[in-house]
Amino acid sequence: MTNIIVINGENLTIDKIEKVARYNYKVEIAKEALDKVKRGREKIFELVDSDVPVYGFNTGVGWNKDKKVFKDFFNKYNTNLIYSHSLGIEPYCTKQEGRAILLARLNTFLVGCTGVAVEIVEMYENLLNLDIIPLIPKRGSVGEGDITNLSHIGLALIGEGEVYYNNEVRNSKEVFDEIKLEMINLGPKDGLAIVSSNALAVGMGALVLKDIERLLNLADIVYCLSLEGLNGNTSPLEMGLYDVRNYMGQKISLKNVTKILKNSSIYNHDWKKPVQDPLCFRGSVQVNGAIRDAFKYCLELFNIQLNSSEDNPCLLLEENKLLSCSNYEAISWVLGFENLGIALSHLSKNSCYRTIKLSNPEFTKLPRFLSPKDNVLGYATIQKVFTSLDTEIRHLSNPATADFYSLAGEIEDHANNTPYIIQKLSKIVDNMYYILGIEAMHAVQAIDLRSDYILGEGSRVAYNRIRAVVPFYGEDRPIYRDIKIMYELVKSEIFIKEVLSIN
Amino acid sequence: MTNIIVINGENLTIDKIEKVARYNYKVEIAKEALDKVKRGREKIFELVDSDVPVYGFNTGVGWNKDKKVFKDFFNKYNTNLIYSHSLGIEPYCTKQEGRAILLARLNTFLVGCTGVAVEIVEMYENLLNLDIIPLIPKRGSVGEGDITNLSHIGLALIGEGEVYYNNEVRNSKEVFDEIKLEMINLGPKDGLAIVSSNALAVGMGALVLKDIERLLNLADIVYCLSLEGLNGNTSPLEMGLYDVRNYMGQKISLKNVTKILKNSSIYNHDWKKPVQDPLCFRGSVQVNGAIRDAFKYCLELFNIQLNSSEDNPCLLLEENKLLSCSNYEAISWVLGFENLGIALSHLSKNSCYRTIKLSNPEFTKLPRFLSPKDNVLGYATIQKVFTSLDTEIRHLSNPATADFYSLAGEIEDHANNTPYIIQKLSKIVDNMYYILGIEAMHAVQAIDLRSDYILGEGSRVAYNRIRAVVPFYGEDRPIYRDIKIMYELVKSEIFIKEVLSIN
Amino acid sequence: MTNIIVINGENLTIDKIEKVARYNYKVEIAKEALDKVKRGREKIFELVDSDVPVYGFNTGVGWNKDKKVFKDFFNKYNTNLIYSHSLGIEPYCTKQEGRAILLARLNTFLVGCTGVAVEIVEMYENLLNLDIIPLIPKRGSVGEGDITNLSHIGLALIGEGEVYYNNEVRNSKEVFDEIKLEMINLGPKDGLAIVSSNALAVGMGALVLKDIERLLNLADIVYCLSLEGLNGNTSPLEMGLYDVRNYMGQKISLKNVTKILKNSSIYNHDWKKPVQDPLCFRGSVQVNGAIRDAFKYCLELFNIQLNSSEDNPCLLLEENKLLSCSNYEAISWVLGFENLGIALSHLSKNSCYRTIKLSNPEFTKLPRFLSPKDNVLGYATIQKVFTSLDTEIRHLSNPATADFYSLAGEIEDHANNTPYIIQKLSKIVDNMYYILGIEAMHAVQAIDLRSDYILGEGSRVAYNRIRAVVPFYGEDRPIYRDIKIMYELVKSEIFIKEVLSIN
Amino acid sequence: MTNIIVINGENLTIDKIEKVARYNYKVEIAKEALDKVKRGREKIFELVDSDVPVYGFNTGVGWNKDKKVFKDFFNKYNTNLIYSHSLGIEPYCTKQEGRAILLARLNTFLVGCTGVAVEIVEMYENLLNLDIIPLIPKRGSVGEGDITNLSHIGLALIGEGEVYYNNEVRNSKEVFDEIKLEMINLGPKDGLAIVSSNALAVGMGALVLKDIERLLNLADIVYCLSLEGLNGNTSPLEMGLYDVRNYMGQKISLKNVTKILKNSSIYNHDWKKPVQDPLCFRGSVQVNGAIRDAFKYCLELFNIQLNSSEDNPCLLLEENKLLSCSNYEAISWVLGFENLGIALSHLSKNSCYRTIKLSNPEFTKLPRFLSPKDNVLGYATIQKVFTSLDTEIRHLSNPATADFYSLAGEIEDHANNTPYIIQKLSKIVDNMYYILGIEAMHAVQAIDLRSDYILGEGSRVAYNRIRAVVPFYGEDRPIYRDIKIMYELVKSEIFIKEVLSIN
Repeated sequence: MTNIIVINGENLTIDKIEKVARYNYKVEIAKEALDKVKRGREKIFELVDSDVPVYGFNTGVGWNKDKKVFKDFFNKYNTNLIYSHSLGIEPYCTKQEGRAILLARLNTFLVGCTGVAVEIVEMYENLLNLDIIPLIPKRGSVGEGDITNLSHIGLALIGEGEVYYNNEVRNSKEVFDEIKLEMINLGPKDGLAIVSSNALAVGMGALVLKDIERLLNLADIVYCLSLEGLNGNTSPLEMGLYDVRNYMGQKISLKNVTKILKNSSIYNHDWKKPVQDPLCFRGSVQVNGAIRDAFKYCLELFNIQLNSSEDNPCLLLEENKLLSCSNYEAISWVLGFENLGIALSHLSKNSCYRTIKLSNPEFTKLPRFLSPKDNVLGYATIQKVFTSLDTEIRHLSNPATADFYSLAGEIEDHANNTPYIIQKLSKIVDNMYYILGIEAMHAVQAIDLRSDYILGEGSRVAYNRIRAVVPFYGEDRPIYRDIKIMYELVKSEIFIKEVLSIN
Repeated sequence: MTNIIVINGENLTIDKIEKVARYNYKVEIAKEALDKVKRGREKIFELVDSDVPVYGFNTGVGWNKDKKVFKDFFNKYNTNLIYSHSLGIEPYCTKQEGRAILLARLNTFLVGCTGVAVEIVEMYENLLNLDIIPLIPKRGSVGEGDITNLSHIGLALIGEGEVYYNNEVRNSKEVFDEIKLEMINLGPKDGLAIVSSNALAVGMGALVLKDIERLLNLADIVYCLSLEGLNGNTSPLEMGLYDVRNYMGQKISLKNVTKILKNSSIYNHDWKKPVQDPLCFRGSVQVNGAIRDAFKYCLELFNIQLNSSEDNPCLLLEENKLLSCSNYEAISWVLGFENLGIALSHLSKNSCYRTIKLSNPEFTKLPRFLSPKDNVLGYATIQKVFTSLDTEIRHLSNPATADFYSLAGEIEDHANNTPYIIQKLSKIVDNMYYILGIEAMHAVQAIDLRSDYILGEGSRVAYNRIRAVVPFYGEDRPIYRDIKIMYELVKSEIFIKEVLSIN
Repeated sequence: MTNIIVINGENLTIDKIEKVARYNYKVEIAKEALDKVKRGREKIFELVDSDVPVYGFNTGVGWNKDKKVFKDFFNKYNTNLIYSHSLGIEPYCTKQEGRAILLARLNTFLVGCTGVAVEIVEMYENLLNLDIIPLIPKRGSVGEGDITNLSHIGLALIGEGEVYYNNEVRNSKEVFDEIKLEMINLGPKDGLAIVSSNALAVGMGALVLKDIERLLNLADIVYCLSLEGLNGNTSPLEMGLYDVRNYMGQKISLKNVTKILKNSSIYNHDWKKPVQDPLCFRGSVQVNGAIRDAFKYCLELFNIQLNSSEDNPCLLLEENKLLSCSNYEAISWVLGFENLGIALSHLSKNSCYRTIKLSNPEFTKLPRFLSPKDNVLGYATIQKVFTSLDTEIRHLSNPATADFYSLAGEIEDHANNTPYIIQKLSKIVDNMYYILGIEAMHAVQAIDLRSDYILGEGSRVAYNRIRAVVPFYGEDRPIYRDIKIMYELVKSEIFIKEVLSIN
Repeated sequence: MTNIIVINGENLTIDKIEKVARYNYKVEIAKEALDKVKRGREKIFELVDSDVPVYGFNTGVGWNKDKKVFKDFFNKYNTNLIYSHSLGIEPYCTKQEGRAILLARLNTFLVGCTGVAVEIVEMYENLLNLDIIPLIPKRGSVGEGDITNLSHIGLALIGEGEVYYNNEVRNSKEVFDEIKLEMINLGPKDGLAIVSSNALAVGMGALVLKDIERLLNLADIVYCLSLEGLNGNTSPLEMGLYDVRNYMGQKISLKNVTKILKNSSIYNHDWKKPVQDPLCFRGSVQVNGAIRDAFKYCLELFNIQLNSSEDNPCLLLEENKLLSCSNYEAISWVLGFENLGIALSHLSKNSCYRTIKLSNPEFTKLPRFLSPKDNVLGYATIQKVFTSLDTEIRHLSNPATADFYSLAGEIEDHANNTPYIIQKLSKIVDNMYYILGIEAMHAVQAIDLRSDYILGEGSRVAYNRIRAVVPFYGEDRPIYRDIKIMYELVKSEIFIKEVLSIN
């Protein structure tokens, strides 16, 4: 009942996309939005009868823009367009990603600038609500519209593609027949309507942004655990310092940290603590905060993409125009994704260095490698593991947006490689779960080796959660299993929620 | 009289920095700000008499933070600190850059968290107003504070460094003696006060941001010239398209473009124009606009740096505390500079492709390589030149912020390499002047080869300015001279101002 | 009978590794080599009774090198070592890769500098011959020895790991029990013997090198097909040109090309051909040849790794010494792998540009996008696909060898990230199959559109092979299926063999 | 008398180039080589009278290859070619670089495949011997032939360029007139002969290779000094280890090291030394050796470039042909330069880590930061300096060869950016001098702090040389001056020669 998201082309958010994609919320199109789609479609048919050449409508696409497309040829032409654009390279999107992609495009249909057939719009809604999700390949797009991949949705719509349905991958026609859903008969501009969108990158990107949003909280939590493990200096956590520096992202992280550490022994005065800790501890709020600022930059521009026209040609209903343009240009927001990769590479370094410090008696006054007794090797070699994952992050953080060709008779000479940017950012995020998971594992081991130490309220919750699945490292055992468990734990939304829901 | 900038630790902007750095405005410290400095200094002397260990004040710095510094040793200790931090690598900053650096640090003194001697603050003001500018090397800093370079200012203050003065480079003591300016006698915390700041990167960065601000306008102008040279399609310039897409940066660029093209033949209806132009033309407003958005992200966070404390330890006057912290962390704003490099690499590609198109009869219907007659080779080989400069930009746009070591006994294990990031961005900007200059040169040649064509009002101004210094290419001549002239022209503020001041 | 490879620590090659890994050849240890292993083991036991401290033998490893390991603790210590080094991160190696890895380490055991237990050496042989292959994770190694991953072999040997066996993944103890193979009881230095090796990178690397070796021939073949599709100029293929330039790699490629094009119409004199073709055609032999030279550099140094000691400490039997050293250092050969990635990025670009040209009537005098009739869209949008794969290659070609940390108490402060370098090179190679497959698909389509044209003898074989699986593109159809088929075809060894076996 | 290098198109080496470029050796063209040039020129005139179209000879160049060039228009056409190719971007080559460039092209003229006017060949010889060296800009070439830059030599030849002469920069005509040297009158193919060559990259590249050759020896020397400063473990220097590993480069470095350390206390047995040193010490021979192998790969392929035809079209005298080709392709050797950058980034890391260790009492048992007394800050902050230079190296080591456009009507769609690759490698080398200089400075300070220690014979020479210019650091002083001195010292050929000339 409550699990319905109403969309209208103006109110989509990454939260809503996640709800639909990962938690199977249903979608409903706002009535006024559907009306706009209808009026747009009518306008298209008016224009069919005029003879103004419009790109991809009554002309060819790309270099073939100089070729005319005649009226009685619309279905054949648009089908051919879907065929010749069905070019994606494996691997395929997961069903969750597929749902995000369908929703992303469905919402930009509702902006009213596409002129797409109403049946197609309703079909996207139906597919989501019936959970029949086309298989969409992830690779093969230069991201100037993900035309080579979204075409696979088109294949499904006309009964020639494959879909996820009831935990199987099946031919779409077969499924449609089974549940008596009518296939789509493509009309004018419908081919372009389906393919000419950034929905592949946008759908995947929305989910990655949700992951990063959580990762930012996770980063604060794990930092706190490590600071407790170190029994570090809290002087850099004084609020006054942030008033004279005034970076918003830092303030949010500081608030988290203050909450998590509440009532911890860490605040006890101790003359034996060094005047200042290594930067990886001392500057954690600064680094985590900077990534929050980078996230904000990305999200604000991404939100515009979510709720604005990405069509070319673009139908301006009020102005009675169908205009060639670059409204599918993704550069405004893709830069934010590149930037997040570089930002996260700093988080990664920070986490790696904190974990290294936790193994070093000089900083912790605890046994080397947090080994509880002399004949236990402990967390020694594991340093290779998280730093090697950091090396991957460093490599993935190299930019790729501006590496493209001039294509289609030199007409398509700009691109952003958005799907690739999203995918490499997604790998960075995945590696971060390992790295932060391993750090957290070190932190709780260090905490266990301290006596008479009271954890902060959030740290206590985190500690308990972790120790419930990974026991104290008292004897050597194959550590890769613990790493895997930690990875799964810190990835889970529930872990973060519980820790931060303390008061 | 009017050419005085009053600073108070809260109101510094990149405009003001440019005025002081490049146009020799004088500076004046607001009285209430200087009072705060004084109170801070008094507080420091109070603290000297307590025995709480404070980093770099009554303890050593870096790994030596465990060593005590005694009261009667303050001068010697702080002098040694300046000596052992004077480590910069050539080349040296220009005098303009040096001015920007002094001002940047002077203003953060005024935030009141440094506890620096009042004489030092006044000395920075005096040096700026007397135009005695210390030589500061550009390299050798990892940007976690530019301590290795700002120390060279310290050397000058104590009479052992070199300064620019009256178009010469001279020993500072000699100059001070000559004009009877007293040298500085370093007291407690003064060493750190001088070196522990990001002013090297900030000063250079402020000037680069001003350059980019202008470059963004230049990019709009040159795009317009090229569009006129192409006699391209204006359909992507319709306002309505930007209302349904709604990126702020794009709207600013569109406004510029609309102004520059006002009353141009370009808007005349012409059935023979192709339905749509190559993306490098069609998407220029989108690309230019995206860089504006990236610029905004960078500038907003940079402005906080300009007017906030970057001190460690940080004096919180009201709270009566001198706290170890990471307030010099630059990551919040350095990411924005990295991001601008990647953003500009798109502008570069766009410009290169437009220039290539202008040489191609298929797109222009003009002679190949814009050669006015058959035995003139024209703008053929020049394509190597601007694309090779783009290759440099592509290379420079690779990130470098997260490549650092763990130093000083593993305590300093985070860095941002801010000065290097600024310097590579500065090279990108310099190359952009060549690239846009060459594009503009092509555009006016294309315009000359069209007949019965009326330029837009801004384009006309730009055209005249260019043709005043680079004549029509009617016979082959060594082109490198023209390139140099164009580079100088488009770099000049006046060119951009004149073009955009039309109504 | 013939399918046995005899190894002796001196004669291993990438061919032999491929035969064992991919074609299930059995291995046999040369008697004199096994004798050397035995003598080495005896020496180890002699040294046990002396009290010279030797790294990882009677001392701890890494930072723990200052801890003593006592004699009666050898088994426990070495088991703990395996446990605490079992740290690999998914994904897992394929069985083929696992076989290559076992063989690589088995052969360096035979160099005689390990001092490993004879039973372990024989166990590696048995596992290979019985096809019981431990699961080895691919990630988590910094490549200074793949200690975090090879430990998983150790887990299997002591009955606590997982193995591929008869198309299943099972617990090793279970399998050993079933076939009555005895588990290993670890003795002195056995832990290090198992883990301290580059075998993960070497095993995977050997297979990648074999793939590249074939790719080099494939590149020659596909170039020939495209040259025929273009009906291009053969002037750059004149032997005399290579005598005055004299690059060996180029001469090998030229020989291939000459063979493949033998008796083709391409050599017919035709005044209408342009004086010279685009560089992507004109310089193909140069590019392909340069990669051959790069391959040779890599292979020569890799061959030394295959047949030399990588042990630390290193047992010098004759000299009666067990020495600490850096003989596992991989830098000599890993540079060659990095370099191959950059080299292949040129091949990728060349192939992409040739394919673009094949779609361009200006160069081919064939229909645009090789479309056989006006209402067929043809190979238009596909340009996005192969260039997006090239973008991935460009990104993957960025170096990563020198991005490492200083670990284990700052003792392990050099690394090469060899496994990651190999894995990114492997992805480059995989993308190349798509790119060359798509090029070949274009080439045969172009050939089909020419009349009265006789293919070269090798080209004819290639053409037939392709057309047997991908029919002429006469009507639009979902092209992704053809791409997949081409990818599989060009990846197959048989395709290349057949084409080049013509005389 | 003896200072003459005789060249014949077959025997040029980087040594000879350095002798001519840096030590002002004169050049002499072997008679038989000049005869070949003459015969080539005659052949060209024969071909002028045939009417076979030959690229750039009786046709245009680049996209204009479809235009005919008529006989009586040769001078005008070739002059225009020089004009329109004179496109280089600042900065300018030094005179030494200019000499190397002239020589590189002069020698490939002598291969006999150019067909250039004999006067031009003799002119290059004269310019070198008279030390009149054209100003050649460094930037603006994509390295597919450095046509945009070598044209500036052409400008000088026809009296319209600038030359270095007697420590001045003057107009070439003026200088020629003054010394009565006749200007060149360009004939058929002469324009291409001058510009179509890789000589810009080759000349600069030869000098960089010489620098690296020396750097490799310097690296061995500085490593030895540091090992002595550390009083490190010599176990990894045992010859037997290299017999069972067998990398040639390593063996050369080992030989150097053994020579330098001869008779040092370092070989004294000392139970208190740790079992093994950090990898930066333990693996130095491995890293230095690997770079030697990388150097060999580069040099071997570069030597072919030095002594082979790079002409297009290429005159095959014997075969009576003038053929279009890609013989200017630089990819075979430019990969080796890219690879050297990556290789040197490892040397840089190794040096940085050794220097860090030398400041750490845990490794040296010497005072922290090698500070001789408690109130001397010592070599603390300097760690920022050399690591920041390493960060630059890391950034410069990113590849750039494959970043190019498709130019000239999509005909020139491959490039290597050779001049840029060389220039970034050159910067890497320059930074290496600073880094190794600083390391050496640390090493001698550590040595001074040891007592009863006898240096190796080579180390002693190096030590004395260094201490002659940089005294013991007994009190704090501005360190940047010492850095500069060390940089100059280790850059000097004499330093390396003296150290290695001991027996």
